[in-house]
Amino acid sequence: MSAVVVEKPALREGAFGNAQALSCRECGHQVELGPHYACPECFGPLEIAYEFGTVTREQIEAGPRNIWRYKALLPVPDDIESSPNTEPGFTRLLKADNLAAELGITNLWVKDDSTNPTNSFKDRVVACALSAARELGAKVFACPSTGNLANAVAAAGARAGIKTVVFIPSNLEQPKQVNSAVFTESLVAVNGNYDDVNKLASEIAGEEEGWAFVNVNVRPFYAEGSKTLGYEIAEQLGWRLPDQIVIPVASGSQLTKVHKAFQELIKLGLVEDKPYKVFGAQAEGCSPVSVAYKAGVDAIRPVKPDTIAKSLAIGNPADGIYVLDICKQTGGAVEDVTDDEIRAGIVQLARTEGIFTETAGGTTVAVLKKLVETGQLDPTLETVAINTGHGLKTLDAVSGSVGPAATIDPTYAAFAATGLA
Amino acid sequence: MSAVVVEKPALREGAFGNAQALSCRECGHQVELGPHYACPECFGPLEIAYEFGTVTREQIEAGPRNIWRYKALLPVPDDIESSPNTEPGFTRLLKADNLAAELGITNLWVKDDSTNPTNSFKDRVVACALSAARELGAKVFACPSTGNLANAVAAAGARAGIKTVVFIPSNLEQPKQVNSAVFTESLVAVNGNYDDVNKLASEIAGEEEGWAFVNVNVRPFYAEGSKTLGYEIAEQLGWRLPDQIVIPVASGSQLTKVHKAFQELIKLGLVEDKPYKVFGAQAEGCSPVSVAYKAGVDAIRPVKPDTIAKSLAIGNPADGIYVLDICKQTGGAVEDVTDDEIRAGIVQLARTEGIFTETAGGTTVAVLKKLVETGQLDPTLETVAINTGHGLKTLDAVSGSVGPAATIDPTYAAFAATGLA
Ligand SMILES: Cc1ncc(COP(=O)(O)O)c(C=O)c1O
Ligand SMILES: Cc1ncc(COP(=O)(O)O)c(C=O)c1O
Ligand SMILES: [Zn+2]
Ligand SMILES: [Zn+2]
Repeated sequence: MSAVVVEKPALREGAFGNAQALSCRECGHQVELGPHYACPECFGPLEIAYEFGTVTREQIEAGPRNIWRYKALLPVPDDIESSPNTEPGFTRLLKADNLAAELGITNLWVKDDSTNPTNSFKDRVVACALSAARELGAKVFACPSTGNLANAVAAAGARAGIKTVVFIPSNLEQPKQVNSAVFTESLVAVNGNYDDVNKLASEIAGEEEGWAFVNVNVRPFYAEGSKTLGYEIAEQLGWRLPDQIVIPVASGSQLTKVHKAFQELIKLGLVEDKPYKVFGAQAEGCSPVSVAYKAGVDAIRPVKPDTIAKSLAIGNPADGIYVLDICKQTGGAVEDVTDDEIRAGIVQLARTEGIFTETAGGTTVAVLKKLVETGQLDPTLETVAINTGHGLKTLDAVSGSVGPAATIDPTYAAFAATGLA
Repeated sequence: MSAVVVEKPALREGAFGNAQALSCRECGHQVELGPHYACPECFGPLEIAYEFGTVTREQIEAGPRNIWRYKALLPVPDDIESSPNTEPGFTRLLKADNLAAELGITNLWVKDDSTNPTNSFKDRVVACALSAARELGAKVFACPSTGNLANAVAAAGARAGIKTVVFIPSNLEQPKQVNSAVFTESLVAVNGNYDDVNKLASEIAGEEEGWAFVNVNVRPFYAEGSKTLGYEIAEQLGWRLPDQIVIPVASGSQLTKVHKAFQELIKLGLVEDKPYKVFGAQAEGCSPVSVAYKAGVDAIRPVKPDTIAKSLAIGNPADGIYVLDICKQTGGAVEDVTDDEIRAGIVQLARTEGIFTETAGGTTVAVLKKLVETGQLDPTLETVAINTGHGLKTLDAVSGSVGPAATIDPTYAAFAATGLA
């Protein structure tokens, strides 16, 4: 299942906080906490199971201004803040009245994760994976990545002083390449798409000892980090759930974990129980989940990605079926948009709210627009859209469509002639 | 002095909070609050003068997690949070033990402003300028910029729904161009360096009515925003001043305002009075202040910039003489480094702390290193270095020196052959 070697004599007491076991999402079989990700009984994905006890709003609000304020709800030790990490999270939740007006929505918020330490939500999941890697005594911190994860792993590993090895598709956007290489000596470009890189990573995870692949053999710990997006949204709304939420989908992990977070908050009595709808956003050029949703089938058929939304270009999404489940159960939907709509979404979010997002965020905004236009999303209900990444990493998506209005000599006459006065 | 037209019948009560007047830094002459920046008596720069009353730590700590927690100390109205703005500030203060170890410093912190809404400290100053523009009834929100300011103005203006016109040198880094153009239709590239662009802006400010140039005719309001860097550092250290602080210098505004912030905190009794040393960081290719410091002269001789640190490339720094004053008075220094040292500084900060900075931050880190090596900075005292910007905006500075260690086919054998296992 994994070759991460526990070098410490044993796990220390409280290494994983309130987490109790790894539990199979399919059959419920439980195994002990460790570098395992597939059920030994049915090969279903393993998830963290907790016994939370009492967790109060006051306790959380007294915590640090980053994801560790929710440490009681994560598989991390109580002293997590004192281990070097990038201190991600607690990003802006912006009321997006201008975008709302353009889309015809009454009450819209953007949760802006582009201001995380390496400018995507991946800093959250990586911080949790880093904690697990440390507690398990891993020697190498690694990942296959569509780009953002590579940035986050390389940065967090540098700060933590652990060796990192990061695998990316060789055709990745140059900013995402440099933004990894600047942190690590061991960036490996792989000829192939993300699914090829991911397969290679699983192979290496099986061969090498002491390697923690954040989204492979410590994936259950990693994935929990996305719950903090859900916790923050609820806390920042004043300990309340929104009516509708739109989330981009690659592997589908983030969407399932935001839903899990909302459910946990309800169970813990931290927010009032109420219905909410979850919507998934994909790019048409890589829309296996959206295709299944529209066809009304339960199985996801893998695709070969072809879209400018490279961060969402996972053709064989590990959590796709759970995304389908959640979106259907809650009364949401999964929708997809074209590359041109994605580009337009990036510019629309920038021009209305002053947020420069990457192609994943362009996808989310464009899907939000389409959901309103097609009547799938109720424009009168309170809605949150998650911006998961930063436009500086996918400059090429818009560099052809925006630019200087004029290039002039430094004189007032030259300026007056532009007609911009 | 300015052509911003007050379109509202009059300024509303409390438009500028606790600010009382504009006061000349040179002769002390006071004028009323408005779009003025030069003293009518002596042409010295005008600064905001306040009557603070009582301000407590509790009051501040109960505020929002952005610069508006310090609104009582800024020239903004009490309801500032309810006007659309980018909600900048309260960025990470990271303990930088790895970098400290490499530099031989005992106790080092990095204040990381690369995670601001448009990824530089400029979001702070622009938020204050935007408030002034709004209260003064400006129709256009504008700036000449070395890049980061353009990003911040264009984004904040978009979100606020005010027309923006942004002027940049035409040779500016492409990421900074796109990162402005995505927000505004009116990006103007000017053939010339920053000082040429700045001169043009002053000319336009004199010709056009209702234009608020953030760093020209509303500069006194704008500049106050940098104080929040000082406030946050003190609060995040537990309401304490550091012993030494290293700050990059372009116009010199930020450095003088961080010092002003520390002085205000002392006067208000929010921190204990204690000596601290202020150090300025410049690039050798644009080091008018450092040159004056080393020559022991009081006057700054303008230079023609030639450095990769374009955000610091102001050859005729408006606040240069005040930087000199402060650094000498406090026992600090002004130092400069070469472009190669700047590149090395970027990679060093990334590899040690997982922070990807731009050339301005590379300058700061490299100057910090040089200050230790030359014995100008005491490595046993608590030191803060400010990272003011983001590496994704100056990719070219390092894209030649870092990259993938290997490009391979997606097989374990190919990976094993790299020697990275
Ligand atoms: C910016 C961005 N948004 C969204 C996602 C989707 O995440 P998930 O794989 O959890 O569905 C990714 C994944 O790489 C991403 O980089
Ligand atoms: C990233 C960055 N750091 C520092 C500075 C220096 O600011 P100041 O002009 O206040 O000295 C600038 C100015 O443009 C900047 O963009
Ligand atoms: Zn099972
Ligand atoms: Zn004067």
